[in-house]
Amino acid sequence: MRTQVAIVGGGPAGLLLAQLLHRQGIDTVVLERHSRAHVLERVRAGVLETGFVEMMREAGVAERMEAEGIAHHGARIAYGDEVFRVDFAALTGQQVMIYGQSEVTRDLYEARDAAGLETLHECAGVRPHDIDGAQPFITFLHGGKMNRLDCDFIIGCDGFHGPCREAIPQEAMRGYEKTYPFGWLGVLSETPPVDDELVYCNSERGFALCSMRNEGLSRYYIQCPLADSPDDWSDDMFWEELERRLPQEMCARLVTGPSIWKSIAPLRSYVCEPMRWGKMFLCGDAAHIVPPTGAKGLNTAASDVHYLSQALMRHYRESDERGLEEYSGRALARIWKNARFGWWMTNLLHRFPEQSAFDLRMQQAELAYLHENETAQRALAQNYVGLPY
Amino acid sequence: MRTQVAIVGGGPAGLLLAQLLHRQGIDTVVLERHSRAHVLERVRAGVLETGFVEMMREAGVAERMEAEGIAHHGARIAYGDEVFRVDFAALTGQQVMIYGQSEVTRDLYEARDAAGLETLHECAGVRPHDIDGAQPFITFLHGGKMNRLDCDFIIGCDGFHGPCREAIPQEAMRGYEKTYPFGWLGVLSETPPVDDELVYCNSERGFALCSMRNEGLSRYYIQCPLADSPDDWSDDMFWEELERRLPQEMCARLVTGPSIWKSIAPLRSYVCEPMRWGKMFLCGDAAHIVPPTGAKGLNTAASDVHYLSQALMRHYRESDERGLEEYSGRALARIWKNARFGWWMTNLLHRFPEQSAFDLRMQQAELAYLHENETAQRALAQNYVGLPY
Repeated sequence: MRTQVAIVGGGPAGLLLAQLLHRQGIDTVVLERHSRAHVLERVRAGVLETGFVEMMREAGVAERMEAEGIAHHGARIAYGDEVFRVDFAALTGQQVMIYGQSEVTRDLYEARDAAGLETLHECAGVRPHDIDGAQPFITFLHGGKMNRLDCDFIIGCDGFHGPCREAIPQEAMRGYEKTYPFGWLGVLSETPPVDDELVYCNSERGFALCSMRNEGLSRYYIQCPLADSPDDWSDDMFWEELERRLPQEMCARLVTGPSIWKSIAPLRSYVCEPMRWGKMFLCGDAAHIVPPTGAKGLNTAASDVHYLSQALMRHYRESDERGLEEYSGRALARIWKNARFGWWMTNLLHRFPEQSAFDLRMQQAELAYLHENETAQRALAQNYVGLPY
Repeated sequence: MRTQVAIVGGGPAGLLLAQLLHRQGIDTVVLERHSRAHVLERVRAGVLETGFVEMMREAGVAERMEAEGIAHHGARIAYGDEVFRVDFAALTGQQVMIYGQSEVTRDLYEARDAAGLETLHECAGVRPHDIDGAQPFITFLHGGKMNRLDCDFIIGCDGFHGPCREAIPQEAMRGYEKTYPFGWLGVLSETPPVDDELVYCNSERGFALCSMRNEGLSRYYIQCPLADSPDDWSDDMFWEELERRLPQEMCARLVTGPSIWKSIAPLRSYVCEPMRWGKMFLCGDAAHIVPPTGAKGLNTAASDVHYLSQALMRHYRESDERGLEEYSGRALARIWKNARFGWWMTNLLHRFPEQSAFDLRMQQAELAYLHENETAQRALAQNYVGLPY
């Protein structure tokens, strides 16, 4: 089997890259470890930056997103008894789009199907070879036999635990990591959202976030100890704890109901450098993880896809290698800024076990400053809707 | 002895308050522990916010400051090999004034002398009494005997170690404190400043600051271990270490010379609440300390003086007590914002012993973001020139 660009990982980053390349006449094969159903069942983020939305249009897969996605022009932040709104539209002229990651993935699969492009699911033992040689290839188990895929380039869109980053010599790369001393317990429920925009809460009992997928599907999160398991939390316990963390005015409007998905995710910041090794390029979670607080996971992957798709087009159309040579540096410059934003939002909104009384007052002072100061709000808003590529 | 407002502490905060009250016909006595020469010899900050400059005008003591002070329209920040300028004037329409704290103090003493107002120096054992009663008074040793000063109000402008804060019942107040794991070794030298504006440096060897008093008097600082003593640092060692921390382009311009003052100051953040107890009001360092990084020490004291002078005028002229009742809350709201700014600047620019590789990259990412992003620069500039009172 041979292709121009072999993409490891059939999540939104890999599929979006494949679709953008396809529209430029570049051939791709996508290898995915799980079944398509499994990929589509994953409950993930759903806040899309303007830049992401534009790439979906560019990829020709924006139709359903435009129809069903919900534009958010701001978000609310609550602390103590105070609630204020950051008006993205007024502060930046931009907005974000609420549209679930699994919906993005579904639209991309459908476009791929329609174009008759090759996606191999349930590929096991995927291994990149000769990535620093002229003729890289991938071996993998699929359909009961070992396969070999020859290619010009290997793109690792295979997430934090995937095989691509692992294939880079240890001594050639460096990872930077921070683990936060708490997790997010998340619940998905078929109830109307408590607010028409997202509400981020720093309460004395810890962080809470009111989010949504659509008018009838709410997504709520509360900060919880890392040692907790979803089984420790009945639905009633969850709603009760959420109510304790919401501002009074929201509690009255909160509609509760059975959870249809409940999970705990740890919070982590991670960036690896470089993102290229020979003919292999990393993209998205394979190279970096942000805590979900700033909604930058999928969006940061998308900026990698942007730089990389541009670089590959220049390679194939103009035999210009500069984009590929600059990819790692350009992608990382933006990644570090998003990592900073996610880290800052996480520090701003959570309660930390080691926080001193002074630290807590600094957090409160930062929230009060943000509440009152338009420039501080604009800085938040610019980062939230997405810094320029 | 009797006065309307007894001011403990003859530093710039106490003297400025006294002068503003005097111009409204309110009688004050200032008690100072040290000799006037000692007060005037103290080498302290010299960056004045717009609001401070306006209060000097309001107090009728701005003449020499207008003539000799240097307006700074921006400052430079260096990190790694990068240097950028934050243009206060373009970003905020405001500037700061470079004029040494000891010059401010001298001008205020001279105005006080000219008006024939009472300032008692070398007062020992100053003790406030009956601060929660109707008739407070102060006892103190002066001129070889014990004295009693009766008054309507006692104002504690007596610094972090003064007797006024101590007089508030422990159970009624709360202090919030952070000590930073390093100090600033500062040198004053009769050399032309390396740059016509301040230069803040985050180098891999630690923080450095190039500041100045005037065209022929430079003030340089380097971050140093807390355990160091000024005697550990010869002038040559200081200049050598400073050069290692400055950007290349500045080293070439650095003029070195003998130090005429050398000292090490620890860095601390401290805020106490409340700032009023009965008839006693705290002002400046008596209630709060900021690390010097954001140049907010004297300026934060000045905003206390602003709120308090307004409140006392309303009391004496209109029998309106609201200003006095609101003083603590209003002063603290601004103090916490300045405390946040000083803490943020300190975190941004210093190297911390406990900093992980990830923490260091967050610092670098924040500097790079600040370098590129006008909104982030505007937020810094607004804080630096002074948030509104």
